[in-house]
Amino acid sequence: LAQRAAQLDAADPLAPVRARFDLPPGTVYLDGNSLGALPSAAASRLDDVVRRQWGRGLIRSWWDHGWWEAPQRVGDRIARLVGAAAGQIVVCDSTSVNLFKVLVAARRLNPDRDEILIDATGFPTDGYMAESAARLTGASTRSVHPRRLAENPAEIIGARTAVVLVNHVDYRTGALWDMPGITEAAHAAGALVIWDVSHSVGAFPVRLDECSVDFAVGCTYKFLNGGPGSPAFLYVPRHLQADFDQPLTGWHSHHRPFDMAPHYEPAHGMARGRSGSPEMLSLLALDGALDAWNGVAIEDVRTKGVALTGFFIDCVDALLPSDQVTVVTPRDRRRGNQVSLTTPGAAAIMDAMIARAVIGDFRPPDVLRFGFAPLYIRFADAFHAAALLGDLVS
Amino acid sequence: LAQRAAQLDAADPLAPVRARFDLPPGTVYLDGNSLGALPSAAASRLDDVVRRQWGRGLIRSWWDHGWWEAPQRVGDRIARLVGAAAGQIVVCDSTSVNLFKVLVAARRLNPDRDEILIDATGFPTDGYMAESAARLTGASTRSVHPRRLAENPAEIIGARTAVVLVNHVDYRTGALWDMPGITEAAHAAGALVIWDVSHSVGAFPVRLDECSVDFAVGCTYKFLNGGPGSPAFLYVPRHLQADFDQPLTGWHSHHRPFDMAPHYEPAHGMARGRSGSPEMLSLLALDGALDAWNGVAIEDVRTKGVALTGFFIDCVDALLPSDQVTVVTPRDRRRGNQVSLTTPGAAAIMDAMIARAVIGDFRPPDVLRFGFAPLYIRFADAFHAAALLGDLVS
Repeated sequence: LAQRAAQLDAADPLAPVRARFDLPPGTVYLDGNSLGALPSAAASRLDDVVRRQWGRGLIRSWWDHGWWEAPQRVGDRIARLVGAAAGQIVVCDSTSVNLFKVLVAARRLNPDRDEILIDATGFPTDGYMAESAARLTGASTRSVHPRRLAENPAEIIGARTAVVLVNHVDYRTGALWDMPGITEAAHAAGALVIWDVSHSVGAFPVRLDECSVDFAVGCTYKFLNGGPGSPAFLYVPRHLQADFDQPLTGWHSHHRPFDMAPHYEPAHGMARGRSGSPEMLSLLALDGALDAWNGVAIEDVRTKGVALTGFFIDCVDALLPSDQVTVVTPRDRRRGNQVSLTTPGAAAIMDAMIARAVIGDFRPPDVLRFGFAPLYIRFADAFHAAALLGDLVS
Repeated sequence: LAQRAAQLDAADPLAPVRARFDLPPGTVYLDGNSLGALPSAAASRLDDVVRRQWGRGLIRSWWDHGWWEAPQRVGDRIARLVGAAAGQIVVCDSTSVNLFKVLVAARRLNPDRDEILIDATGFPTDGYMAESAARLTGASTRSVHPRRLAENPAEIIGARTAVVLVNHVDYRTGALWDMPGITEAAHAAGALVIWDVSHSVGAFPVRLDECSVDFAVGCTYKFLNGGPGSPAFLYVPRHLQADFDQPLTGWHSHHRPFDMAPHYEPAHGMARGRSGSPEMLSLLALDGALDAWNGVAIEDVRTKGVALTGFFIDCVDALLPSDQVTVVTPRDRRRGNQVSLTTPGAAAIMDAMIARAVIGDFRPPDVLRFGFAPLYIRFADAFHAAALLGDLVS
């Protein structure tokens, strides 16, 4: 297996991209699905933004260095990774806050229906925000497993369902859910659909336009490597923008923000998705981080991601006792760039791995989670992690 | 006047603090009330955060470098500047988003009253957010000049008023409104009060605890010099925290966020004011920026601020034709750290000043606005700006 890893790395067309990252020597970092590694361009960009644009340009940089338009400009850089035409993505606020915007807006677009349907395996914040939006708009939430949703959409999505909120990839198991199928079923039932693509953006091609997705949100600090808490993004297709009636009506979403008008009038286009002042240093660090994607085809990332996760599963099968460790990630291609294992004592095992410089993470109650970021993870890293895990388990 | 400026600078106890800032040579920067100048410590802190904490520590830095608790920790650093005991301020999101949280929470605390009263001269985003919160909670907004509110509170605040939202300092004129008086009147009438202290934090002592303020929000990129769009803060006094029922219920505000529980349970204490992942680079740049305040007494800042703005008004009186230029900022001490003038052709005059390296700003229709940040502005700067303005106007 070590030899196969070396062969796979030698043949990997993305191998040179690893040099664009500033990685700690001797560490195998398999938690890029939580916080991506540091792209060198993020650090150098931030130097320039802080010392020259802020320090020298001061207030003028809002215009001279394009700060004001940056949320839309950076959004357009993300667009190609999620299959969106330009002018449909804005980068601002957190995923949670953007979820609130689209949940309330979706409910307002479907006022005669009072149910928000959420996937039971989604990231918890999605459910919390759905509960809050439901409470404020006089709706209720219902939770259902995305497998049931994919298998029996007509039975599940009802006449009361205003909007369906689904996570594209299960954050625990890495399972990938059917975007075209669920979206089509929601539309057939008269419901809108919101996809949370936090775990799929930058992992493989997402096809928001092609799937006729109504709204999407996603985070940028995982596979996009934008840095801790880097701002999230929000997608609204062009045909819904004029009716996108979101509740966080801060002045950055105003049609004429510098008129300082007493009443709110929403901006045309994606600026409407903004709220208050964007946290510019975090946003422009992300802008720099996206340079690591220059010339990288997302299809190649998918190819390598499937190969990496598949190879890791092969290593687990070969090196770990199957009565103690279970692969809970789908073994076919229906998975994101992560492999999750369940095992007794998972928390202690992860602590021991981290102490030996192999960093993954633990999710309660018994899940070991390993992310494989194709831009900087090698097949040799996957082998090394599985071998260490084998030593620790036995 | 030039001589008096030199004498005042020589006697200024805050003069050495200017060296903590990285200012562009030859520029007089009088827009620190829009975007504060760069504290050197913000840049060096960010270097460490990016290269060592993110680059080397990776995901572990959420704990090893205290990222998770940073919103509350940085909040506690701001507390002394606004007269708040520890544990009552959290730094996260934008002022607009935090306004939404407190507006909805205030309405929920006063459910039998359905009016949100706002000050007519406040920053527009405050009114937009009040309109949105009113719409979602079945309330209405009413707008009134803060002068009327201060003079006749019992007549204005009615039996339907759930909450009063007031800007502490008028962003256009620099007028300072009566926090103790308006707060007391609101309470006497059975209403809650929210103060937006964006233009007063770091300008002079704010006494949130002493005034029994219910909620406050403020921004950190003006006199706190946190950098472009640096995160805002939110104040909830301890006695209201258990009943603080805010709508942006992201996982960072959960009682046990890492349980990944399916339903929302609010955190105890100020973590309840958080929402999604904080934009950590912007937050920690602010943390570094606050080092510029080490050992600085806010009372001294107030003393210098009144002297600086008073001296600038003296210069305007002496050097500018009174039939063309009007000082709209109060001439007594009831003002923040800014002086606003109205004059015909204000926009063109400001462009000409900026071209000559004196930076203030213009607010429609005819306001020239000059901010005086006592940490880095000298009396000589005030003289220079007034002299240039005199040349341009005549």
